[in-house]
Amino acid sequence: MAKNCVWESRADGRSGYDMRKVSFQRGFSCYAEGSCLVSFGKTKVLCTASVEEKVPPFLRGSDRGWVTAEYSLLPRSTSTRVPRDISRGKLNGRSSEIQRLVGRSLRAAVDMESLGERTIWIDCDVLQADGGTRSAAVTGGFVALVDALRHLWRIGKLKSIPLRSYVAAVSVGKISGKLLTDLCYDEDSRAEVDMNVVMDGLGRLIEIQGTGEKDTFSRDEMNGMLDLAFRSVEELIVLQERALEMDGEEMEAIASS
Amino acid sequence: MAKNCVWESRADGRSGYDMRKVSFQRGFSCYAEGSCLVSFGKTKVLCTASVEEKVPPFLRGSDRGWVTAEYSLLPRSTSTRVPRDISRGKLNGRSSEIQRLVGRSLRAAVDMESLGERTIWIDCDVLQADGGTRSAAVTGGFVALVDALRHLWRIGKLKSIPLRSYVAAVSVGKISGKLLTDLCYDEDSRAEVDMNVVMDGLGRLIEIQGTGEKDTFSRDEMNGMLDLAFRSVEELIVLQERALEMDGEEMEAIASS
Amino acid sequence: MAKNCVWESRADGRSGYDMRKVSFQRGFSCYAEGSCLVSFGKTKVLCTASVEEKVPPFLRGSDRGWVTAEYSLLPRSTSTRVPRDISRGKLNGRSSEIQRLVGRSLRAAVDMESLGERTIWIDCDVLQADGGTRSAAVTGGFVALVDALRHLWRIGKLKSIPLRSYVAAVSVGKISGKLLTDLCYDEDSRAEVDMNVVMDGLGRLIEIQGTGEKDTFSRDEMNGMLDLAFRSVEELIVLQERALEMDGEEMEAIASS
Amino acid sequence: MAKNCVWESRADGRSGYDMRKVSFQRGFSCYAEGSCLVSFGKTKVLCTASVEEKVPPFLRGSDRGWVTAEYSLLPRSTSTRVPRDISRGKLNGRSSEIQRLVGRSLRAAVDMESLGERTIWIDCDVLQADGGTRSAAVTGGFVALVDALRHLWRIGKLKSIPLRSYVAAVSVGKISGKLLTDLCYDEDSRAEVDMNVVMDGLGRLIEIQGTGEKDTFSRDEMNGMLDLAFRSVEELIVLQERALEMDGEEMEAIASS
Amino acid sequence: MAKNCVWESRADGRSGYDMRKVSFQRGFSCYAEGSCLVSFGKTKVLCTASVEEKVPPFLRGSDRGWVTAEYSLLPRSTSTRVPRDISRGKLNGRSSEIQRLVGRSLRAAVDMESLGERTIWIDCDVLQADGGTRSAAVTGGFVALVDALRHLWRIGKLKSIPLRSYVAAVSVGKISGKLLTDLCYDEDSRAEVDMNVVMDGLGRLIEIQGTGEKDTFSRDEMNGMLDLAFRSVEELIVLQERALEMDGEEMEAIASS
Amino acid sequence: MAKNCVWESRADGRSGYDMRKVSFQRGFSCYAEGSCLVSFGKTKVLCTASVEEKVPPFLRGSDRGWVTAEYSLLPRSTSTRVPRDISRGKLNGRSSEIQRLVGRSLRAAVDMESLGERTIWIDCDVLQADGGTRSAAVTGGFVALVDALRHLWRIGKLKSIPLRSYVAAVSVGKISGKLLTDLCYDEDSRAEVDMNVVMDGLGRLIEIQGTGEKDTFSRDEMNGMLDLAFRSVEELIVLQERALEMDGEEMEAIASS
Repeated sequence: MAKNCVWESRADGRSGYDMRKVSFQRGFSCYAEGSCLVSFGKTKVLCTASVEEKVPPFLRGSDRGWVTAEYSLLPRSTSTRVPRDISRGKLNGRSSEIQRLVGRSLRAAVDMESLGERTIWIDCDVLQADGGTRSAAVTGGFVALVDALRHLWRIGKLKSIPLRSYVAAVSVGKISGKLLTDLCYDEDSRAEVDMNVVMDGLGRLIEIQGTGEKDTFSRDEMNGMLDLAFRSVEELIVLQERALEMDGEEMEAIASS
Repeated sequence: MAKNCVWESRADGRSGYDMRKVSFQRGFSCYAEGSCLVSFGKTKVLCTASVEEKVPPFLRGSDRGWVTAEYSLLPRSTSTRVPRDISRGKLNGRSSEIQRLVGRSLRAAVDMESLGERTIWIDCDVLQADGGTRSAAVTGGFVALVDALRHLWRIGKLKSIPLRSYVAAVSVGKISGKLLTDLCYDEDSRAEVDMNVVMDGLGRLIEIQGTGEKDTFSRDEMNGMLDLAFRSVEELIVLQERALEMDGEEMEAIASS
Repeated sequence: MAKNCVWESRADGRSGYDMRKVSFQRGFSCYAEGSCLVSFGKTKVLCTASVEEKVPPFLRGSDRGWVTAEYSLLPRSTSTRVPRDISRGKLNGRSSEIQRLVGRSLRAAVDMESLGERTIWIDCDVLQADGGTRSAAVTGGFVALVDALRHLWRIGKLKSIPLRSYVAAVSVGKISGKLLTDLCYDEDSRAEVDMNVVMDGLGRLIEIQGTGEKDTFSRDEMNGMLDLAFRSVEELIVLQERALEMDGEEMEAIASS
Repeated sequence: MAKNCVWESRADGRSGYDMRKVSFQRGFSCYAEGSCLVSFGKTKVLCTASVEEKVPPFLRGSDRGWVTAEYSLLPRSTSTRVPRDISRGKLNGRSSEIQRLVGRSLRAAVDMESLGERTIWIDCDVLQADGGTRSAAVTGGFVALVDALRHLWRIGKLKSIPLRSYVAAVSVGKISGKLLTDLCYDEDSRAEVDMNVVMDGLGRLIEIQGTGEKDTFSRDEMNGMLDLAFRSVEELIVLQERALEMDGEEMEAIASS
Repeated sequence: MAKNCVWESRADGRSGYDMRKVSFQRGFSCYAEGSCLVSFGKTKVLCTASVEEKVPPFLRGSDRGWVTAEYSLLPRSTSTRVPRDISRGKLNGRSSEIQRLVGRSLRAAVDMESLGERTIWIDCDVLQADGGTRSAAVTGGFVALVDALRHLWRIGKLKSIPLRSYVAAVSVGKISGKLLTDLCYDEDSRAEVDMNVVMDGLGRLIEIQGTGEKDTFSRDEMNGMLDLAFRSVEELIVLQERALEMDGEEMEAIASS
Repeated sequence: MAKNCVWESRADGRSGYDMRKVSFQRGFSCYAEGSCLVSFGKTKVLCTASVEEKVPPFLRGSDRGWVTAEYSLLPRSTSTRVPRDISRGKLNGRSSEIQRLVGRSLRAAVDMESLGERTIWIDCDVLQADGGTRSAAVTGGFVALVDALRHLWRIGKLKSIPLRSYVAAVSVGKISGKLLTDLCYDEDSRAEVDMNVVMDGLGRLIEIQGTGEKDTFSRDEMNGMLDLAFRSVEELIVLQERALEMDGEEMEAIASS
């Protein structure tokens, strides 16, 4: 795709290729087996990984584990206060869609046979929302998940660390016909096309969700957005690796899975 | 993509390129402004389009219309009976995700300014489910939607038929490394990758949702799946055109929008 | 009752004694153990019978089976779209009342001891509503129920077909002081008295629900309405018998119950 | 019907023709516009009538009033504690059915035009349940309703007392082939047929609900049960009249409606 | 505290020190193991105690019992009708708060080891509300609870009556800077400070909840209110003792606990 | 009270008189009109204050404002994961009780007439729970509330800062007969008596909730606990003042209220 289709200068000074500042604060919660406060710019999501020593009914007796996710916005994580789900009496449709995406994405990272009959709950609570919360939830949720797996291995409940690959996600999009990565809320609300891409550490796709409600997109544009996503996810995985600070023993415990 | 990556012979005799038999029974419901019983093989979805002369709060006073969708499985549309949402007390997460997809897809088909401040509700009730229900819901829902728009035009409530383009959808996937279109339930449950593609009549993408929960997928495979989807959606749109039987006057009423 | 109390000519040409055209399409659903799309004129109800190999708590260990029903209107089965129960967050009072009636009526048809500890769920989903949906649900639900019982017998789970009798239902009423059977929606909404009668194949009553919200009714009028109901239910049972196409072996399997 | 089909001696010494001791305690509640604690033997229902100066949406602007009812069992009104609806998260199906019956029955008693655009809520809360709670709710609810209408007339909000007729109800049934009136819980649970009959002061029927879940019933038996019901309702209406203690002025205010 | 800080003459003639007329009608319900209709003036609460032979999950296998309470207002117990919880779809926040208070207070009265693995449900249904309903619920609930314990002892399920102490409650408050006990609704709605005090028979505190939403209160005032509460609770306990009419054998059965 | 009734040395080295380390991080959220992350030791509560330009129905047209609070635990704020309210379908009884307490306490801080017809929502989301969350919510919620009031004054929507007084809260209790302030979770779960005290800056009581579910408490003990609470709240208010960094102009804007 021609370079001039990518944004050169955005409101906050980034080019179309640039992610916002990304950070991971591991161990934010003192109780969870794994936890991580992830920031993509002003977007902040608290991700915790909780181990439960049982699986949902459809897996009982299967010797396989499960990973599931829940996603929620704090009422004032957004510019206008949103009522809590419990006040409205039902789960928000958007939250439901996002938590299913996070769950599927993180299940792809884990070898369920080695995990054994236990569930890891990934709770993603958005403390501040400035676009890209679902990508941040996948990317930060992965860090919390790995810490929970390490914990289970360290205390002897697992013989290896059952990690199949790294997993990270980014949103890419098109505004006024130009492509860009890691949209903030203001960009997202103006985007003609919005695409979330979840990938692993080897550049393979796990999940892709692109939507052109305001405008359609061509295969060329889709390829351009995928190019941006590949680049951003690669960067995110480098940052995850740094944040996770695996030692040699742990690397081996993963390899043996 | 190399041809040999596409299935040659499936359980029901189809090749990887073949859709199941698709049919549209317009006017299934005598009350709805538009209705269509769509079949993709054994999958049957009853789609109705209902006109409501108001819009949701966020659009009031905007002179723009809205299209929204609801999706539900009848309890015994599947091989095992599923309890009704109301018995479980909450909307099924999967249904919530699907109805959001159907709504976005069909909104892309309509010129909301010309529609004016009214809502079109697309109800997609699955009478029998054998895979591909969300694709069938988009594709059949489009036919019901067009009939509702024609109705509004015929009775003088609209000056033109505010249709921006045809819209259809198909599911494509990968099984044992080979690609195939329009998966039935048995194929879907074994698929490593499952991708739903919504497109318009000019081959532009509206929505793409691919998920590799059991396995990842490469960009090559993704391109192969998109090739299949393009071909199938083209076929679907020819069938929609035939089913809709637009006359010259109506074609003009669309063009003038 | 004097003949001149019965309508002679209704809007659709019927006399007060005439049912609308009734039809049963068995095997509408390919998954359910029994299914039937029943039509009373424009009223269409999809009835499925699903077998579950357990019973509600109050029957566990009793060696007796159970039959239960659920009833729901599709949102656009009516002239104005009705919101789904799950959107309103509670089961519609009218639906609740009807499904209890259908359940009681069909339980009367079955020998619960011979059925053994299993439940048959009758789902009645109204695709199109033009009056008489509860009568159609009982009458069509019976056909689906019988097919499920035959299926259990054919696959050897039952030694006989545990059918005690045929069951059918009709609505009768009074408009402007004149009596009539099988009211369509327009008649129903104008009726001073509306009575639903469920009977068996020997002319015995199973359930009777008459209501005179707009006007009271005398015992004479009640007898006149019952006369009409007897006649209509007899006709319905003949049609059920024809639709069910029992062979000699099956007849015997019923007799032995 | 032959006399020998009616019970001669029941467990509590009554014959099949006898009601239990019935009493009405008017003014049980100091706030409600009308209230009555009604007892049918050990069955005790607290009925209150509350006036609300508006009507449901479908009646706005119609100059007509509305009467609606709610029915609920206190948790320990029965021999085994039943959880509250709010703990189970949904309205009990049986309660829903009963409150619809009570509402329809009492609406038949009122001239809605003269009532004007206001709603009367009849709350029937069962303090102790020993069979016949729905009949007691209709019969006691009527007394509370009349007191609320008198109150509106006395304070000048109504020019007349808009009462069309007295309304009372009784349950009748069949046990071991013999008929009886006003079943207590023990009888009700053994009854083959159970029929609730609502009538007015002139012996006209308002509502009839008979159900033969355990056994069918013939027209002869139905007539026998109706005979019993007529006799019992007549007795109930005499007791209502006595309890209501209308003076001449009030009688006139009713007549003028 | 200076005597002149206590009300001398209230609207209903009481001084600030006086309770309203209090009465206990034991055995109001014929099914409950214990029951009591308690009145504090016009406030009437029906309290029932129901025995369930199991405990909540967190106590299973602990050999300890449990006491829990539910509290609800009948719709027309108040001057304006309040919708039922089930109509609004959620438990009222105030009711939830009160039933937790009643449960904690009555648990303090029981020796859970001697009770054994069973639950006593205290249902407090307010028939008429004129202030002080939560105090009446605790005080009357205690009487129902004792009767249920006696019942279990009498039928041999308990070796002793596991009562640790009497428990009663009263509300005290401050109006225009003056203190008073047992506020009726009119006083309660004008009170600057409202305090509920639960105590046992030896003058020890079990629960205290004071709130100064309209005005704060000093420690002096708090002490004054406590003085009033001590006096009133002492009076209530005398009345409870009289109502309970324990005989010598029962006194011993308590002492042995 | 004798000094030796107060704990001298607790597990974490504190004496019975010592609060844990308390901190306030103002402006934690970039969208809320006021926000504060408050810590009492390991307990962390995110408090936001959101302004809504309308009031609940019962205050419309009154020219008075309103302050309301919501309280919720994140699922993994505790040592064992707790399901979200929306998954269980109802608001947690404990949360409901706490948010009512927070709302009442903070309403006492505000002059509603000067606030005018607007609502301030205080959302208290517990990120980590180690005892004392309700006290932390009141104390941190106050800081967020003040910042929202300052904001309204700074942008000219208010002529003064309508603050009546500072408000803070602490929990005190009794373990093994000895008294202590600011209980952590481990202490709280062992406490015989637990008392939450809300006070203002002049040492006046706003709310007091003491509960002796495991043991009763004497008036002497209650006085001892109040002494501890007075001392702790005084300390908290000094810390609030420091955190709020009011300048002279603002002090004046408060005084003029």
